Amino acid sequence: MKSQQNNWKEKLHEIIYEADTKEGKIFDVILLIAILSSVLFVMLESVNHIQLKYGTLLNIGEWLLTILFSFEYIFRIISINKPTKYIFSFYGIIDFLSTIPNYLSIFFLGTHSLIALRALRLLRIFRILKLARYIGESNNFIKALKASRAKIAVFLFFVLILCIILGTLMYLIEGGDNGFTSIPRSVYWAIVTLTTVGYGDIAPNTPFGQLIASIIMILGYGIIAVPTGIVSSEMVKTQDLHLNTQVCLNCGEDGHDDDAIFCNHCGTKLNI
Amino acid sequence: MKSQQNNWKEKLHEIIYEADTKEGKIFDVILLIAILSSVLFVMLESVNHIQLKYGTLLNIGEWLLTILFSFEYIFRIISINKPTKYIFSFYGIIDFLSTIPNYLSIFFLGTHSLIALRALRLLRIFRILKLARYIGESNNFIKALKASRAKIAVFLFFVLILCIILGTLMYLIEGGDNGFTSIPRSVYWAIVTLTTVGYGDIAPNTPFGQLIASIIMILGYGIIAVPTGIVSSEMVKTQDLHLNTQVCLNCGEDGHDDDAIFCNHCGTKLNI
Amino acid sequence: MKSQQNNWKEKLHEIIYEADTKEGKIFDVILLIAILSSVLFVMLESVNHIQLKYGTLLNIGEWLLTILFSFEYIFRIISINKPTKYIFSFYGIIDFLSTIPNYLSIFFLGTHSLIALRALRLLRIFRILKLARYIGESNNFIKALKASRAKIAVFLFFVLILCIILGTLMYLIEGGDNGFTSIPRSVYWAIVTLTTVGYGDIAPNTPFGQLIASIIMILGYGIIAVPTGIVSSEMVKTQDLHLNTQVCLNCGEDGHDDDAIFCNHCGTKLNI
Amino acid sequence: MKSQQNNWKEKLHEIIYEADTKEGKIFDVILLIAILSSVLFVMLESVNHIQLKYGTLLNIGEWLLTILFSFEYIFRIISINKPTKYIFSFYGIIDFLSTIPNYLSIFFLGTHSLIALRALRLLRIFRILKLARYIGESNNFIKALKASRAKIAVFLFFVLILCIILGTLMYLIEGGDNGFTSIPRSVYWAIVTLTTVGYGDIAPNTPFGQLIASIIMILGYGIIAVPTGIVSSEMVKTQDLHLNTQVCLNCGEDGHDDDAIFCNHCGTKLNI
Repeated sequence: MKSQQNNWKEKLHEIIYEADTKEGKIFDVILLIAILSSVLFVMLESVNHIQLKYGTLLNIGEWLLTILFSFEYIFRIISINKPTKYIFSFYGIIDFLSTIPNYLSIFFLGTHSLIALRALRLLRIFRILKLARYIGESNNFIKALKASRAKIAVFLFFVLILCIILGTLMYLIEGGDNGFTSIPRSVYWAIVTLTTVGYGDIAPNTPFGQLIASIIMILGYGIIAVPTGIVSSEMVKTQDLHLNTQVCLNCGEDGHDDDAIFCNHCGTKLNI
Repeated sequence: MKSQQNNWKEKLHEIIYEADTKEGKIFDVILLIAILSSVLFVMLESVNHIQLKYGTLLNIGEWLLTILFSFEYIFRIISINKPTKYIFSFYGIIDFLSTIPNYLSIFFLGTHSLIALRALRLLRIFRILKLARYIGESNNFIKALKASRAKIAVFLFFVLILCIILGTLMYLIEGGDNGFTSIPRSVYWAIVTLTTVGYGDIAPNTPFGQLIASIIMILGYGIIAVPTGIVSSEMVKTQDLHLNTQVCLNCGEDGHDDDAIFCNHCGTKLNI
Repeated sequence: MKSQQNNWKEKLHEIIYEADTKEGKIFDVILLIAILSSVLFVMLESVNHIQLKYGTLLNIGEWLLTILFSFEYIFRIISINKPTKYIFSFYGIIDFLSTIPNYLSIFFLGTHSLIALRALRLLRIFRILKLARYIGESNNFIKALKASRAKIAVFLFFVLILCIILGTLMYLIEGGDNGFTSIPRSVYWAIVTLTTVGYGDIAPNTPFGQLIASIIMILGYGIIAVPTGIVSSEMVKTQDLHLNTQVCLNCGEDGHDDDAIFCNHCGTKLNI
Repeated sequence: MKSQQNNWKEKLHEIIYEADTKEGKIFDVILLIAILSSVLFVMLESVNHIQLKYGTLLNIGEWLLTILFSFEYIFRIISINKPTKYIFSFYGIIDFLSTIPNYLSIFFLGTHSLIALRALRLLRIFRILKLARYIGESNNFIKALKASRAKIAVFLFFVLILCIILGTLMYLIEGGDNGFTSIPRSVYWAIVTLTTVGYGDIAPNTPFGQLIASIIMILGYGIIAVPTGIVSSEMVKTQDLHLNTQVCLNCGEDGHDDDAIFCNHCGTKLNI
């Protein structure tokens, strides 16, 4: 009896958590469609004239998906050996937070908007489609990003401090009459300018303010090279070091091409 | 008789499809001028005050070019051995779609605007001018782009999901009064911001919204380094592998390392 | 007596200037919080409705921090052997300029806004958190930036001249009616456009002006590759030269090539 | 007599065209100040309220500088052996075009605005300050730019065609009511969007238009990597190939480091 139940649990686990069997693949495709529909429903519902016309239809669809997601959540907990591991994992928390708001909206009115949390479920697409594996066959991509993470964080931190200083300066120069009504707002403007976004909702009006703004822009245009340079060089480095790990049995030469059959140093056949 | 006709077909093929003979070159230049004029006519016709003044003239020009393109299309079908291959090829479909709307506009009124499809013919310029060959002498350029295509696609897909999540967040924070009237519109705003375009038609007004916007901008400023890094490193890698021009006398393999003494494909000593 | 006083000075120096002891770490954390609060207070004070509500509270907080910074400044001078070295150092001047305005604001009314100079103290965060050391373990990062500094400066200088010429051109084309009221303003517009910021406060209206603007934008889109290319290649170069960790036994030279057999400085055989 | 005159011409040539002697350096500095003042005068004159106040003063300054430039121009022609070579050179034409408008403004009223051409003289700064030499000590920088020039041109050409196609598409979708009044204007908008400038003077209003706009933006965000990748890889390649041209006399090994004294392959002293 227990063995049979185990078997049943194992099968469910295979279908829900893996995609090797036919049933597992079908489950993944259905889940993918459900997530995409769910996000689409939330988006359409927020558009006023669509809400007025198809509100009831969207509501029904949302409830159907919520029930589907609830069952998926319960099955995920049942089929795994250590339920707490799933419940408190990154995807476990997202699954819970994206399912619960619809139920809460029966009792509390405001919580309905929390349904937008469901957009976070889109992240699961990466898992379902195994896209992450597709990117970094040799994991070079992820390695390069991890290696440059610290440098980019410091760079962005430096950009932030620069924006605070420049924003404060612009607040003193332009003043409230030209839209720079407070330092936080001026810092916001400095970020908009340095990152070359440039909304234009706040723009300098005095000649001196425009001079400082020009300097900020040229600065932003120049230092955008820094994160790019970091990532590029990190990627080139990672690739060079991991091109091929074959070592010649005769002369010990390494660094062969990927399609090398013979050692390019002594001519011995490589052990492929 | 048949051989003569064949000869005639072959000559036409040489003129239309190739650019080695004098006639072929003249044909290409005329076609290039015709395509550019055609696009120019469509553009000018859309400008109101030019349409009022020179409408008839542009109309005549357009009809002349349409007839010219029709003949070109027919000759292309006649002169090739397997017409279906051309008709259903990329350029074949474009040629058809860019010629037919003018005829349809006699019977249906709305189809005239389809004439704008003619802009697609501009892509033929690349073929005529053989620009593609000019870029990648050793095809390194195209190789690098193809190699990084998958990575960039995943990256852009990740950016899109990020924009959906951040757009939904901003919709909840800012609300309809500040222009964030629906989630799709907020997602549109998030894309405008993250890609550092920054129209300013929708801009955050609340302090908290501006804070989130600032984070999005700095994020966008930082992650623009990722596609650049991918392409750069891919290009450096591709170049490194083809630096050496040695070709093995035995097996004809090329692309050896700079310090290679033996062919890495068959083990023959290279002629250094 | 003197030795005891020396001891006392040494201990104070260790606490204030270093972060090796427990007291030194606590001092650094307190200073970090004080600087961040101080900047936050200045920012909040500039927001009108916060100033009206919590003005007195913020004022008291600012005075407390000013007194704290005054003591810190005095202790820094006392505990160091050569006070002038600190006073005229980069951080010494910033510390003085960010402490004095609050005192001056008692006598002179306008100087209060100088308190914004305090934002410059944020730069000290880099020192406290030792972030700079974190970036460039092998100093490659700083080396690459220094090596490319001159090139980037010339590039930005070239961009500036380009903007003056293009701005002047647009002033002649568009004229004052379309917002291009003077050459300096047109140059400002050219910088906004070339750096891809694009506020939209000034935008070309005439067809010819939009044509020139399009050329400037495509130009800006293309030449952003230049600073990026400079930094990237500089970083790759710096890394390449230090890939190898071999040190010559004879002369201690390092930074050898990967395939080096003999030291390139003294000719001794390397221990591979 | 003739030799003396020759001597006099040679000296003038040395002063005007070169910067090796003390007089030559002084001449360059004066010319630099004159050019900068001249550009500054033109810029200030275009500002309305400055023109009203200091108009006469600026006018006198301009005439003094025009006379100075006229003398410089004449001396340049006299002191060179082949005057036509200078007159029809790039700088010769700029010098002429930037000097003549002031004289013409006596007879014709409109030509005064041509004085803005003087901004082109700023390019001479590169020559005077020998900045170009400063950038590319080993000419790697210029080489890399030249090598990637063709690729970048093709890329920008491709961007332009893309903008024409996308602009035409948006003209059909959005129509004149939303600001897309004609195809040229829509193409202008597509360039503004793809290059991530984003003025916001024209912005899509319909949901479908915003969808297409989003795609264009993400496209622009992605393909900015292409020119950057081209320049970066070109620079890395150029540097690698030209690091050092020394060849070992004994074993013929090349590619030594810049500070190499002994061959890293066989240990022979290099011929420095």
